[in-house]
Amino acid sequence: MTASIRMDELSWPEYQQKIAQNVPVFLAVGATEQHGPHLPLGVDVILPTGIATRVAQEVGGIVAPTIPYGYKSQPRSGGGQAFPGTTSVDAHTLSLVLRDVIRNLAYHGVKRLVIVNGHFENTWPMTEGVDLAMRELHRDGIDDLVVLRLEYWDFVETATLDRLFPEGFPGTALEHASLLETSMMLVFRPDLVDMDLVPSDGPAVFPTYDRHPVDPDMVPKSGVLARAQGSTAEKGNWLIDDHVALITKAVRKEFSL
Amino acid sequence: MTASIRMDELSWPEYQQKIAQNVPVFLAVGATEQHGPHLPLGVDVILPTGIATRVAQEVGGIVAPTIPYGYKSQPRSGGGQAFPGTTSVDAHTLSLVLRDVIRNLAYHGVKRLVIVNGHFENTWPMTEGVDLAMRELHRDGIDDLVVLRLEYWDFVETATLDRLFPEGFPGTALEHASLLETSMMLVFRPDLVDMDLVPSDGPAVFPTYDRHPVDPDMVPKSGVLARAQGSTAEKGNWLIDDHVALITKAVRKEFSL
Amino acid sequence: MTASIRMDELSWPEYQQKIAQNVPVFLAVGATEQHGPHLPLGVDVILPTGIATRVAQEVGGIVAPTIPYGYKSQPRSGGGQAFPGTTSVDAHTLSLVLRDVIRNLAYHGVKRLVIVNGHFENTWPMTEGVDLAMRELHRDGIDDLVVLRLEYWDFVETATLDRLFPEGFPGTALEHASLLETSMMLVFRPDLVDMDLVPSDGPAVFPTYDRHPVDPDMVPKSGVLARAQGSTAEKGNWLIDDHVALITKAVRKEFSL
Amino acid sequence: MTASIRMDELSWPEYQQKIAQNVPVFLAVGATEQHGPHLPLGVDVILPTGIATRVAQEVGGIVAPTIPYGYKSQPRSGGGQAFPGTTSVDAHTLSLVLRDVIRNLAYHGVKRLVIVNGHFENTWPMTEGVDLAMRELHRDGIDDLVVLRLEYWDFVETATLDRLFPEGFPGTALEHASLLETSMMLVFRPDLVDMDLVPSDGPAVFPTYDRHPVDPDMVPKSGVLARAQGSTAEKGNWLIDDHVALITKAVRKEFSL
Amino acid sequence: MTASIRMDELSWPEYQQKIAQNVPVFLAVGATEQHGPHLPLGVDVILPTGIATRVAQEVGGIVAPTIPYGYKSQPRSGGGQAFPGTTSVDAHTLSLVLRDVIRNLAYHGVKRLVIVNGHFENTWPMTEGVDLAMRELHRDGIDDLVVLRLEYWDFVETATLDRLFPEGFPGTALEHASLLETSMMLVFRPDLVDMDLVPSDGPAVFPTYDRHPVDPDMVPKSGVLARAQGSTAEKGNWLIDDHVALITKAVRKEFSL
Amino acid sequence: MTASIRMDELSWPEYQQKIAQNVPVFLAVGATEQHGPHLPLGVDVILPTGIATRVAQEVGGIVAPTIPYGYKSQPRSGGGQAFPGTTSVDAHTLSLVLRDVIRNLAYHGVKRLVIVNGHFENTWPMTEGVDLAMRELHRDGIDDLVVLRLEYWDFVETATLDRLFPEGFPGTALEHASLLETSMMLVFRPDLVDMDLVPSDGPAVFPTYDRHPVDPDMVPKSGVLARAQGSTAEKGNWLIDDHVALITKAVRKEFSL
Repeated sequence: MTASIRMDELSWPEYQQKIAQNVPVFLAVGATEQHGPHLPLGVDVILPTGIATRVAQEVGGIVAPTIPYGYKSQPRSGGGQAFPGTTSVDAHTLSLVLRDVIRNLAYHGVKRLVIVNGHFENTWPMTEGVDLAMRELHRDGIDDLVVLRLEYWDFVETATLDRLFPEGFPGTALEHASLLETSMMLVFRPDLVDMDLVPSDGPAVFPTYDRHPVDPDMVPKSGVLARAQGSTAEKGNWLIDDHVALITKAVRKEFSL
Repeated sequence: MTASIRMDELSWPEYQQKIAQNVPVFLAVGATEQHGPHLPLGVDVILPTGIATRVAQEVGGIVAPTIPYGYKSQPRSGGGQAFPGTTSVDAHTLSLVLRDVIRNLAYHGVKRLVIVNGHFENTWPMTEGVDLAMRELHRDGIDDLVVLRLEYWDFVETATLDRLFPEGFPGTALEHASLLETSMMLVFRPDLVDMDLVPSDGPAVFPTYDRHPVDPDMVPKSGVLARAQGSTAEKGNWLIDDHVALITKAVRKEFSL
Repeated sequence: MTASIRMDELSWPEYQQKIAQNVPVFLAVGATEQHGPHLPLGVDVILPTGIATRVAQEVGGIVAPTIPYGYKSQPRSGGGQAFPGTTSVDAHTLSLVLRDVIRNLAYHGVKRLVIVNGHFENTWPMTEGVDLAMRELHRDGIDDLVVLRLEYWDFVETATLDRLFPEGFPGTALEHASLLETSMMLVFRPDLVDMDLVPSDGPAVFPTYDRHPVDPDMVPKSGVLARAQGSTAEKGNWLIDDHVALITKAVRKEFSL
Repeated sequence: MTASIRMDELSWPEYQQKIAQNVPVFLAVGATEQHGPHLPLGVDVILPTGIATRVAQEVGGIVAPTIPYGYKSQPRSGGGQAFPGTTSVDAHTLSLVLRDVIRNLAYHGVKRLVIVNGHFENTWPMTEGVDLAMRELHRDGIDDLVVLRLEYWDFVETATLDRLFPEGFPGTALEHASLLETSMMLVFRPDLVDMDLVPSDGPAVFPTYDRHPVDPDMVPKSGVLARAQGSTAEKGNWLIDDHVALITKAVRKEFSL
Repeated sequence: MTASIRMDELSWPEYQQKIAQNVPVFLAVGATEQHGPHLPLGVDVILPTGIATRVAQEVGGIVAPTIPYGYKSQPRSGGGQAFPGTTSVDAHTLSLVLRDVIRNLAYHGVKRLVIVNGHFENTWPMTEGVDLAMRELHRDGIDDLVVLRLEYWDFVETATLDRLFPEGFPGTALEHASLLETSMMLVFRPDLVDMDLVPSDGPAVFPTYDRHPVDPDMVPKSGVLARAQGSTAEKGNWLIDDHVALITKAVRKEFSL
Repeated sequence: MTASIRMDELSWPEYQQKIAQNVPVFLAVGATEQHGPHLPLGVDVILPTGIATRVAQEVGGIVAPTIPYGYKSQPRSGGGQAFPGTTSVDAHTLSLVLRDVIRNLAYHGVKRLVIVNGHFENTWPMTEGVDLAMRELHRDGIDDLVVLRLEYWDFVETATLDRLFPEGFPGTALEHASLLETSMMLVFRPDLVDMDLVPSDGPAVFPTYDRHPVDPDMVPKSGVLARAQGSTAEKGNWLIDDHVALITKAVRKEFSL
């Protein structure tokens, strides 16, 4: 049998069989968010789904449908909610979605779950959602689910960052719609990248605090927080290779695969 | 300009331009739910997304990312939550997702929104989500959003049903994973349909009430509530043509397009 | 002892004794909603309470106080919230009321609960409320409560509908404030029916979608969605006899009474 | 026109006409709660509904359906939740019910609302519900609703209490199921009072604190917190006359009637 | 070892050791609320914290950080929310805070918890919070936590009130910012009391009902509901001595200390 | 007039006068959380309150009561919830507290609010709380509140970090209960620091993902994530001076003070 790696392409008996074999389930959590004029709104869905799929291939897992609406974009890490197309949910809403989906997966026997974040701001509502689910599952008498929750961009070798940023890595937060994401998009969906539209109004210089209401002059008009110039598929592959290899390693270790 | 019909494939300036032209936005709401041994878990995502896309093509609209996790399956209309792979959220959770997504779309200027339901049980949490959004938008001073909320299967000619069911239409609820859905899947994703696995343990005979806890003997073991025998792509096209034509007609009428 | 069939007329020791005997408890869930110019706002309380009481008499059960405020009326099934007097609660609110009341009944030993819906739109918030209660009770270590949840109008013989609608039954949704409800009100509370005020502006012709904001021209000005002409107590008794007999049969079967 | 004083007995045009005349609407909030072996579970519905009805008659108002499930009984004021039949909802649930009902009444033009509490423990969830409603209505642009929220037992002349308790009034909290409530029940529903079953295990002697879990020995086994001996319909009428007269006076004053 | 009596001054190993010895934990719940021109906004934090600390000293307990924001002030007991500086949270919010803090204390082994209320209006959201926590803890398999929840002002000898109010005690509710609180503040924080600013516009004469919106003329302009004239530290000590002695007695009795 | 800088030490007329002058209000949000064997549970309250107070002195502001219970400690940044004494609230709870307190401050005229976070994990529930408050205030017609929300540790000169960490700064997350916090505690509350108990089991080596349930071997037994050796009050003053100077600068800039 060569059933799909995608949960939504499996019939329920196929899924049941997979779960009975204790294969890891991967759940990507994305966002619909502006990523500058050269990238589409779906970047934060495409990247974690792509990486989760490759890791699932490595370890024989399956990939659940990606959650496409994430937590509200913040000015200092994603440009903020004012950009047209940035379509988000409240923190409590996202936590409840995570809680419910995890609980349902566990009810059907999933014991190994890897949740792959594709949108920086999701980190904390996701964390809360996992905690709420674990608490409820404990009350339901289910204590054998193990969840790994991760930001894929944290799985990278220092050497790779050094290669990518010979003048020093500016840090994850500012990388929104910039070199890293653009390069990986050139691997996964080059048809959706228009390098001619890469803007030059960055990098952003942010204060070390949030201001409400947001000062619209603080965010580059393009929505690109750092620089996307020099993005290439080759660089994207360096990153993806790291992400896949290191997440695979962690998954194998934690699940003894 | 030949920008994509998919919102997630648009950059934010492309999206902004579309919204400035007042194009309708289509939002499909699906589910990850068992559909028998011959169909994949993603049927309720694939069908409304496919239909919404075709209507969007007709009227020049764009299609937002489909919400992939829906309300809990009920035994009498979807077989219930016990089938492996049926992965759902609570009613309040789904309503909040709808509320938040609608509100965000409206904040960026969307004035014409068509919400296409692909999963029977979503109907009421979606209805509540729309109401919550409209109430909040009114408080935000936004009163010019018009939402059409619909179940795609309600858009069908009587003549078509007569052709499909010469011995009489058994009704929408029982059609779960049966002739209608199977035939349309043979159009949209024939690679995911295995007609050799169509079961024969239906149609279900349900009582006229819900019982909690669910009586597992009540639901056909296959998860198919009626009959899928005789499904063909040709029949699927009859249905899809009706759905697309009649929804398009409604959208044109309400939005004067 | 001839204690009342109404829970609110029992003292707590009387109630305790009934519950110790495992009698079924009936909980009707109604609404305060417009029912045209010829019927009162309380129709959806009066009818399910009346039917629940008769079934309780048949099977030796007791009737809990009816919940008088239900979910929001929808234009296509109840005329919508714009009619003066239609006084409703949000979906989450109604689900929480159900959850709490069911949980409390179970804490005191109720093992057989029949929940009788009197208002179409309540169906799904009630369904969610029951599910929330069952989930919490399981966590409380209570797994022996059985709940039957039903719409009373689904318990009718085809022959009866044929007698009532010689030209064909128009369907449940449209029957709001029409022949069925009016006829039964002529049995339960004829003093509250004014046949001289039966309107003639129906039946409604609805589109197959919801529109928000509601188009006020879509709903008959009277609030009567179909036709109430020809309603009689005799017809009401046909219906009530069916409802009582068939619900009684279901209750006896499920509870082995 | 001699339309009913009860909202649920009015048709929507009758209700609309009443509201257009700015008549006060009375909403009683009750409970389903043990009241000793001599009184029924419905006391906290019967008494405030009865009193609200009499006041409505005085001032030309109408009476909305009474909310029959109230906040959780506390040991020191109602005996606590352990008594069979005491069927309650959480504080947040009751507040949401109040919020929603008040909001809906206001949407249809109600400008004068009197909320009559019949169950001590409801006081604070009701207070919160009113506040939530007023806050939301303000956001909806509705600022002309005036709500009077009251406990009916606070409307009594000192002279009456002196007549009833020649040896000194023990205080409202302890009066649960005791002389006051029993006497008034002998007026409103004497058929539901069995004076032969009045217990003698009170009055309770409570500590000045709550203990969780509840010490079951703290509450009289009968559920009667003080003494019901000596209750008569005559005494009940003294109380009811005071309640009606003083509430009427307050309503007239606040609404300039 | 002479570790602090304050939880926030203990290291976690010190705290762990205390809890292993089953010492009672005291949690005061206060408010930030106007208390007239002569008292600071923090009265409802200072008083219950002071009293809880003294009781903890008597019984060898420890004092958790006081919750400084309480439920909304009501006109008839605290002057209402309109006074500048009265900074409050919704009922549901306060209940959730209590629920979460209690649950966390119990997770770490606390078995004896005394919750000391310093703000009248907190009583019911606190009560609900305790109930929610106990319910969740039961589901977590933790049933050995005992909570005493109390209003400190209820622990006073009649003789003391007679000494303080030779002409009769006007009742707790009206005592807001008046003789009792002022006198105790003269003990705990005399530097924050300015007797020269004690106002003379009270005592308030309140109706026996709430009115929404609040009638601003109903509340004394100063925010002092009764009278603070004659307050002295000596009187404060009478009260504090009673509060400490009687609460200590209750704690010893319930916890067999 | 020399009124206190602390809001809880002001009377309401004093507070009113301050707010009328548009002084900034500072609200610190802390936590009750383990900080190793050498520091007390209150570190995350003491430090942000101390820093907020100093900034308030610089700019003539006032300091509201600090919220003492924060969001759940995470293993990789605070050691996790398993340490005795770490007493936290859910994300939604903390967001609601922030929402309510901010809303109340704004209702009384506060236009300049600085929220100072003292606990890393609070960052996102606080962010959500601010957003919820701003959204509600907008609906209340209040649009002139400006909120600055900040983590105090982000306000530091690179030169200072270089002086403190000659071998390179290990990063903020790992600094829990380590050199920075210990040094500042030696300034603010040296009586609560026991340098003899500084542990040597760090620094922690964390994976780049969360694992649920937590692997207890991952976190140093002491709860100190990095190293606290070498902490001195002098170093603490370097940090505090930076924090105060840079926050003051930001406040002056944003509020034109």
